Amino acid sequence: MSLKGKALIAQSGGPTHVINNSFVGAALEARKYANVTKVYGALNGVEGIVNEDFLDLSSATINNLNEVADTPSSGLLSTRVKPDAAFCEKVVKVLKAHDIRFVFYIGGNDSSDTIRIVKEFADKEGYEMQAVHIPKTIDNDLVINDHTPGFGSAARFVASAFAGVNLDNRALPGVYIGVVMGRHAGFLTGASVLGKKYPDDGPHLVYVPERDFDSEKFVKDVKDVYAEHGRCIVAVSEGIQDADGTPIVAKLQETVEKDAHGNVQLSGTGALGDLLADLVKDNTAIDRVRTDTFGYLQRSFIGAASDVDQKEAREVAERAVQFALNDNKSGSVVIKRIADYGVNYELVNLSDVAAKTKHMADEYINAAGNNVTKAFVEYAKPLIGSDFPTIARVQAPMVEKIINK
Amino acid sequence: MSLKGKALIAQSGGPTHVINNSFVGAALEARKYANVTKVYGALNGVEGIVNEDFLDLSSATINNLNEVADTPSSGLLSTRVKPDAAFCEKVVKVLKAHDIRFVFYIGGNDSSDTIRIVKEFADKEGYEMQAVHIPKTIDNDLVINDHTPGFGSAARFVASAFAGVNLDNRALPGVYIGVVMGRHAGFLTGASVLGKKYPDDGPHLVYVPERDFDSEKFVKDVKDVYAEHGRCIVAVSEGIQDADGTPIVAKLQETVEKDAHGNVQLSGTGALGDLLADLVKDNTAIDRVRTDTFGYLQRSFIGAASDVDQKEAREVAERAVQFALNDNKSGSVVIKRIADYGVNYELVNLSDVAAKTKHMADEYINAAGNNVTKAFVEYAKPLIGSDFPTIARVQAPMVEKIINK
Repeated sequence: MSLKGKALIAQSGGPTHVINNSFVGAALEARKYANVTKVYGALNGVEGIVNEDFLDLSSATINNLNEVADTPSSGLLSTRVKPDAAFCEKVVKVLKAHDIRFVFYIGGNDSSDTIRIVKEFADKEGYEMQAVHIPKTIDNDLVINDHTPGFGSAARFVASAFAGVNLDNRALPGVYIGVVMGRHAGFLTGASVLGKKYPDDGPHLVYVPERDFDSEKFVKDVKDVYAEHGRCIVAVSEGIQDADGTPIVAKLQETVEKDAHGNVQLSGTGALGDLLADLVKDNTAIDRVRTDTFGYLQRSFIGAASDVDQKEAREVAERAVQFALNDNKSGSVVIKRIADYGVNYELVNLSDVAAKTKHMADEYINAAGNNVTKAFVEYAKPLIGSDFPTIARVQAPMVEKIINK
Repeated sequence: MSLKGKALIAQSGGPTHVINNSFVGAALEARKYANVTKVYGALNGVEGIVNEDFLDLSSATINNLNEVADTPSSGLLSTRVKPDAAFCEKVVKVLKAHDIRFVFYIGGNDSSDTIRIVKEFADKEGYEMQAVHIPKTIDNDLVINDHTPGFGSAARFVASAFAGVNLDNRALPGVYIGVVMGRHAGFLTGASVLGKKYPDDGPHLVYVPERDFDSEKFVKDVKDVYAEHGRCIVAVSEGIQDADGTPIVAKLQETVEKDAHGNVQLSGTGALGDLLADLVKDNTAIDRVRTDTFGYLQRSFIGAASDVDQKEAREVAERAVQFALNDNKSGSVVIKRIADYGVNYELVNLSDVAAKTKHMADEYINAAGNNVTKAFVEYAKPLIGSDFPTIARVQAPMVEKIINK
């Protein structure tokens, strides 16, 4: 017989465009079950659980929840806390006190590890509950999953940004370097190519953390592209490392410390982009070198969501509730690709996903390690959704010259 | 009687989302007139004119041109060349050789000055022609114009970016500084507030070049907002200056030169954002300080165009052609606001617009010089167009605490 009690939903880690589709999908689905006595939302992830900061989602209107679903970023707010065993013990104590029997935790691989520890602790205490991890991360780095909710929309943003920058750079040529989020996995940086249409469209070079970054080779690559096209657009992951595994941005730290400035972090600073721009300026004769670090817009920009991503984020959460309520199961819901293009949702053990990182497959990166392959484009293109804007160049004959002929 | 001859269209300066709406609006309108023998498009602005790099737009399909119209950035490519008298003489020589009697030049205040010089030179030579400047600039800094094509879409991008960043920063609080384009005018930075909905939404502070930037006051402002909201979002123009008129980013130059790095420019570098973030880190106890420089995405991001801006960019160019062809006039077309909300297009003398810069009205900036006013919001809101995405917070009661009560 199925458990009876309250359901709890929480969100964790970096927000995404569609994480509220998951939250609302879980809430509305959970409200349908007779053995779910109430649906709560914890504020600020696990922090909100131990503090009992709960919203009673059973008393939210459907219209309000649907508007929240289409609002980017974590509507229940988030946390970066990574709980230890003592923390998880407190979590279980609160779950017991409120008779919470179903926990749905939306997050990345750290979050799935958190919920794994909580569930194990509850089992040890003999507290009956189901705990389901709902995947989300713009980094797309959860194992077993074909892809993760949040990635498609961030990828659409990155593809839209580079498609626009390519047009701008064509009108006023030079070298342009765009720094993309992704500490360990290059999927999002790879998405920079998804808006390309004409053969000479940028980005012309793509550097991901899965390949060692060599400054000299980088400068040579830029020179080669510039010689061919009179311009060069580069997409680069914030997490690129050299052959020793040292993040390239960390090489700045020396200089920065000399300047008595603060810590260097990967996101929220233009340091890496400026470093790479300096490399090009110092080692080539190219005048116009510009760099942008796309930063937080990648995961939050209003109006950039992929409809495919939104739909899947909602579905994966509905399925999470169904696994817990219909099948009395705990685990992590994973997305499997079943057609061209379609998906299915399966439940795997929490420990299968927890604290593991997926990287780009070798077949997605070219031999020179400076671009993605056609296989990657085929993999990623369906995820950015429908109605990607059309770009067009003028198709008209050149006029014969009179004076300069 | 009206002149008869070819029409020429060119684009200049920084591209915008809607500059091709103007180009195509002018081309399709000009193609309708019997006394326009051909419609040419010059590649790379005035450079293309002196080099006779012309596309024959009379042989472009309507479908292709309409697709180009909705593609961001200059479809005829652009230039940063600011022609001197000798250059303008060459321009007139080419116009004569090709029997070009109507010139439509899409650009900012530098461009209107270029076309003014060309027209004066042609008059002096006795070469009959009409020259019309079609306004464009995301900076919104052309005099006489209520606003300029390109601004509304860039403003929509900036408003969308800050609306998303506000949600992200609410979920994971800290200080966030977003650096917005605008060398001398703060209109685009002001647009950062247009996506605000709830009273505590960011940006909480807005700094524009029209007011002296004081680092100490800035740090105090950030501290005050942080004390009130537990977070703080700042929008700042790349062009902010201190009381001596020195750009704040130039203060970096010393450090940068010590590091033997290249030039510091306003756009295409994260330098100003990082400087401001360091100011906050070094002078407060706030841990999480992040900065993004929105860069080229502001003027090129695919899919961010304002429908109002697109429509007006097309109309202003159609009217330019009508002024030249129906009324035998030269000048600069300006946009006047005639209703709430509607516009009308008028023709003024080229010299009235040329090489002048409009700044934000005093009534648009608050007394403290750290935000925009309601009057600015009323002015700017119609320009970002329709269907701005809705954001919503969960409306649900808090649950009574059991353990922590």
